[in-house]
Amino acid sequence: MAARDNRGRLLISCPDRLGIVAAIGQFLSAHGANIAESAQYSTEPQGGDFFMRIEFELDDLAQKENTLCEDFGQLAKEYGMRWRYAPARAKKRMAIFVSRELHCLQELLWDWQDGLLDADVKMVVSNHPDARPLVESLGIPFHHVPVTADTKAQAEQRQLELLAEGIDVIVLARYMQILSPSFLERFPQRIINIHHSFLPAFIGRNPYQRAYDRGVKLIGATAHYVTEELDEGPIIEQDVTRVDHRFDASDLRIAGRQVERAVLSRAVKWHLEDKVIVHGNKTIVFA
Amino acid sequence: MAARDNRGRLLISCPDRLGIVAAIGQFLSAHGANIAESAQYSTEPQGGDFFMRIEFELDDLAQKENTLCEDFGQLAKEYGMRWRYAPARAKKRMAIFVSRELHCLQELLWDWQDGLLDADVKMVVSNHPDARPLVESLGIPFHHVPVTADTKAQAEQRQLELLAEGIDVIVLARYMQILSPSFLERFPQRIINIHHSFLPAFIGRNPYQRAYDRGVKLIGATAHYVTEELDEGPIIEQDVTRVDHRFDASDLRIAGRQVERAVLSRAVKWHLEDKVIVHGNKTIVFA
Amino acid sequence: MAARDNRGRLLISCPDRLGIVAAIGQFLSAHGANIAESAQYSTEPQGGDFFMRIEFELDDLAQKENTLCEDFGQLAKEYGMRWRYAPARAKKRMAIFVSRELHCLQELLWDWQDGLLDADVKMVVSNHPDARPLVESLGIPFHHVPVTADTKAQAEQRQLELLAEGIDVIVLARYMQILSPSFLERFPQRIINIHHSFLPAFIGRNPYQRAYDRGVKLIGATAHYVTEELDEGPIIEQDVTRVDHRFDASDLRIAGRQVERAVLSRAVKWHLEDKVIVHGNKTIVFA
Amino acid sequence: MAARDNRGRLLISCPDRLGIVAAIGQFLSAHGANIAESAQYSTEPQGGDFFMRIEFELDDLAQKENTLCEDFGQLAKEYGMRWRYAPARAKKRMAIFVSRELHCLQELLWDWQDGLLDADVKMVVSNHPDARPLVESLGIPFHHVPVTADTKAQAEQRQLELLAEGIDVIVLARYMQILSPSFLERFPQRIINIHHSFLPAFIGRNPYQRAYDRGVKLIGATAHYVTEELDEGPIIEQDVTRVDHRFDASDLRIAGRQVERAVLSRAVKWHLEDKVIVHGNKTIVFA
Repeated sequence: MAARDNRGRLLISCPDRLGIVAAIGQFLSAHGANIAESAQYSTEPQGGDFFMRIEFELDDLAQKENTLCEDFGQLAKEYGMRWRYAPARAKKRMAIFVSRELHCLQELLWDWQDGLLDADVKMVVSNHPDARPLVESLGIPFHHVPVTADTKAQAEQRQLELLAEGIDVIVLARYMQILSPSFLERFPQRIINIHHSFLPAFIGRNPYQRAYDRGVKLIGATAHYVTEELDEGPIIEQDVTRVDHRFDASDLRIAGRQVERAVLSRAVKWHLEDKVIVHGNKTIVFA
Repeated sequence: MAARDNRGRLLISCPDRLGIVAAIGQFLSAHGANIAESAQYSTEPQGGDFFMRIEFELDDLAQKENTLCEDFGQLAKEYGMRWRYAPARAKKRMAIFVSRELHCLQELLWDWQDGLLDADVKMVVSNHPDARPLVESLGIPFHHVPVTADTKAQAEQRQLELLAEGIDVIVLARYMQILSPSFLERFPQRIINIHHSFLPAFIGRNPYQRAYDRGVKLIGATAHYVTEELDEGPIIEQDVTRVDHRFDASDLRIAGRQVERAVLSRAVKWHLEDKVIVHGNKTIVFA
Repeated sequence: MAARDNRGRLLISCPDRLGIVAAIGQFLSAHGANIAESAQYSTEPQGGDFFMRIEFELDDLAQKENTLCEDFGQLAKEYGMRWRYAPARAKKRMAIFVSRELHCLQELLWDWQDGLLDADVKMVVSNHPDARPLVESLGIPFHHVPVTADTKAQAEQRQLELLAEGIDVIVLARYMQILSPSFLERFPQRIINIHHSFLPAFIGRNPYQRAYDRGVKLIGATAHYVTEELDEGPIIEQDVTRVDHRFDASDLRIAGRQVERAVLSRAVKWHLEDKVIVHGNKTIVFA
Repeated sequence: MAARDNRGRLLISCPDRLGIVAAIGQFLSAHGANIAESAQYSTEPQGGDFFMRIEFELDDLAQKENTLCEDFGQLAKEYGMRWRYAPARAKKRMAIFVSRELHCLQELLWDWQDGLLDADVKMVVSNHPDARPLVESLGIPFHHVPVTADTKAQAEQRQLELLAEGIDVIVLARYMQILSPSFLERFPQRIINIHHSFLPAFIGRNPYQRAYDRGVKLIGATAHYVTEELDEGPIIEQDVTRVDHRFDASDLRIAGRQVERAVLSRAVKWHLEDKVIVHGNKTIVFA
C-alpha cells in the first residue's frame, strides 16, 4: 500500500435522485480531488435510497480537509445526505472488550501488528485478568473492570470513564457481558460483536451445545453491530466451517474459534476502512 | 469406477464392546470377502455406540449373498447389531416428488444421467403438471397427483398406490406439500427433503424473504430425512453461498437454488451409496 | 428483477485524470439518466488507469440511446476513453461450441432457461453429433461441423459462415479443438473458454490425470478469454473443490465437472452483464 | 477431549489380501484393546495396497505397549506390513524452522497454546533473530543459526546438533533456506513445508508476484513433506482464498498469509495425530 496521507474517504447515503453522482464528482474535481476508487448502489432504479463510498486523493489533504468538509456540508444539505468523511491517515481509536476466551483478541492484535487492521488500539478492557500479559506485552494499556450482577452499573461507569479519552470503535471480542442500553446509545453503530453462531440460528446462549444437539454439518459465526436487541443488530459478516459427526460440543467450540476470529477480523477491517454503511437493520458493505 | 458386481456394503450400528471389528473382519474373511474400504466410529472410548460401514469384494457375490446375510444375522444377534446389507450392483429404486420449482429435480436427473447418482429412477410424482415434459423426455414415468386441502388424504392414497411397486427412497425435490404421519411412517429414514435455508435458521415458510429481512451475508440449504416434526429431521448435508446487500429476496431465491441443488444431490448420493446411518436425530455420514 | 427496458450500461477505461467521474456523472444527469449502480477502480492513486462500470436508468432509453452514444463519443474522445455501451434489454447473441462432454453446455442451457443467463442463444456448434437431441429439444439450432486435421480450415470456414448472422459472444463449453489465430482475431475478448484445471497449474492436456499423478488435494477450473497463447488468456473466474486420496483420475474428472460448470456459468453471466473489462492480460470484474 | 492415556494409534500399510482387517481386529481384541475409530482404504478391489489407521483404547496401555508392539511385529511380518505405533499421550517432539516472516510460526504457537496442536515444541530455529522475543516469551528455546552461501554446511551441522536431542518432526514455517539432501535424509517424511502457492502452480520463487502477473482469481497455499525435489514432495493439504483485480502483489502476499497459516496448521495437526500415511509421492490422509 502506498502512503495514504492524501487519501480521503466519503460515505454517503441519501434519497436517490438525478445527478447525485455528478454533483459529488463535480464537487471533488472542483476541489482538486481525484477519485481513486468508488462504489455506489441504489436500492431501486428510481426513488430508492442512494449509497456511495468514495476514496479520493487530494494533495495537502490535511490542510484542505476542513474547507472541504464545510463545503461538502452545503452539498449534503441540498441533497439530504447523511455523510461521513474520514481521512485514511487518521487511524480509528479502538477499544477491545474481552472476557476469558482470548482467541478473537489475539487475532485482532496479531492482524493489527501485521498491518492488516489500520487502527490505533488504545486499550483492552476485560472483566477478567487473563488477557493482561498478552496485552501489556504489546505495550497496550489493559484495564481489568470486574463485573457482577450487583456492580454492573458501576462497572459500566468505570468503562465509560476509560473510554472518555475518545474512542471511535469498540470491539466485543468474546466479551460475555450484556451492555446496558444507556451504554450502547453512546456508541451507535460503533460497537462490533462476534456471535458464535450463524445467526439467526442458535440465537442466544450456548450455540455450540445447541448446534451439537441439532446435528448440524456446518458451524458459523456472525459479526454484527450491537443494538439493544440482543443478537439482532445489523450483520456485517458471516462465515461457516464444515464439521461432522465426530465433533462433540467441545470440538465444535474449537472449530468455531477459527471462524469467529476470521469473521470478526474481516468485519473490523471493513469498519476501520469505512466500508460499511448501516441501513436500517442491515449493512451495505462495499468490500 | 470398476465393475461392481461383486461389491457389497454393510452398515452396522450397535452398543460398543470389545472385539466387534475382529468379529466382523473374521466373518468376512471366513466367507472369502476382501474389505476394500471401511470406516468406523464409536461415540465414546468405551461403552458408547459403535458405527461401521464396510465395502467388500466377494467373488460370485450374487450367489453367495443369501447365505452371507443369514450367517451375518447370527453374528448380529450376538452383538445386538442393527445392520443393513446392500449389494452395490442393486441400484436403489427412487421416486422423486416435486412441485413447480424444477431445479432440484433437474439436477438429480442430470447427475443421474451423468452417472453420479447410482439409482433406478422409477417415477416422478408431482402435484403440478409442469415437470411432465422434462421427465417423460427421459423415459421416466410421470404421475400428476393434484393435492388440495380437501383431497389430501386421497392424494396420498394415490401416491401410496404408485409407490407400491417397491420404492427404496423418496426424494422431496422442492415438494411443497406436507406429508401425513401415516405416510411418513411407511418410509422411515427413507424420505429425503431439501429445505431452502441453513437450518435451524429460518425454519418454516418463506426462508428467503426472512433471510432478506434479516440481512444475512450467507444463504444456505439443508438436506435432511423427513420426520413428523417439520424441518426437524436428521440433517444429512448443508452448505451456504455468499450474498450481499444488492440481493433482493428474489435474487436470494435464485442464488439459493444453486446451493439447494448441490446439497440435495450430495445427500442423495450418500444415501444411495449407503454412507449415511441415522443415530437418534443425527446422522453419521461416512462420506 | 424489475423490467429493464430503460436500463443502460457503460463500461469505460482510460488514463486516469482529475474530474472523470464528475464529467461522466454530469453527462448522464444532463441527459436525464439516473445512475443505479456504479463501480470504479484506478490502478494508481494518480496517473494510473481508470476503469468504471455504470448502470443507469433513462426513460425512453431506446429512442434516446443513439443521441446518447453520439454525445458520449465526444466526451470519450476528450478523455481518451475506450468505452462500450450496452442496453440491458438487448440480450447478447451467443453461440456455444461443444464437443462430446455435455455438462457445461447443459449447465449453460439450464441457467439460461432459469433466467440466470441473460442471453439470446442463437446456436450450438459441435464437432460431434452428441448434443443434438438436447439442443434441439429446446428449440435451439444445432450445427454439426466435424473437424479433422485435414478439414480444419474448411470447418472453421463453415463455422464462420454460421456465425455470420451476428454473434456477440462464443462460449467454448468443453470444445476440444484449437481455434486458429485468424478465427480468434474476429472475436477479440469475445470467446470464453473453460479450462479444466486451476490455471496455471496443469496447463495443457490431461489436467485430471496429471492432478492425480501429483496427488493434489483440490481440483479447479478456470474460465478465461481465448487468445492465441493456449490457456494463457485473461482469467475471468476460477474455483476449486476438495478431493482426497480415494479419487482416481476418473473420479477427479467427475468432481471437476461440477466446478467447471459453475465457473463457466459465472464467467458467462458476468460477461453477459457487461461486468468484465479486459486490461492487458488480466480482467477487471465488477461482480 | 477425554484423557487419552490409554489411547493408542496404529498406522498400517501393506499389500492388500484377504483377512487383514480380521487379523488386526483379532489381534487387538485378543490384547483387550477396543477400537474407537478406524479408517481403511485399499487402492484396488483386489491386489492393490492396503492402508489403515486405528485408534484403540487399552487399559494400562503404558505397561502393555511394549508387548503389544512386539507381538504386532510378528503379525506385521506375516502380512508384509509397514507400520507405526504411536500412543496418543506421547506428544511428538517438534522443531520449527522460520526465517523473517513470522505468521506461520505465530499460528503454530498459538494453536499449540490453544490445545489444537498436540505437540511438545522443543525449539525454534531461525537464520534471523526476529522471532526470538515471541518464542522466548512462551518459554521455548530459540536458536539463531545464521546461514550464508559460504556457511551453509556448518549451519546445517549446527542445526543437526540442536536437533540431536531427539526431534520427531520439523516444520518449515516459512523457512527460506533450502536444506541439503544429507539433512533431509535424516528426517524422511518428517519435515513439513508450507509453500505459498497452490502447487503445482507457481512452483519455485516469488509465487505471489507471478500470481499477480497472471491475474489469477484465487491464491493458494500447499503443505507438503519435503523431499530432494524442491516443491515436489507429497502434498498433505491445500487451500485457496479469493482475490480480485484490486489486489497488487503485496496485497496477495497478505491475503496469502491467512491461507498459509491455516493450511500449515491443519497439515501439522494431522501429522501430529498420525493421520497421514505417505504412499509414493502422495499422501493418504485419514482426516
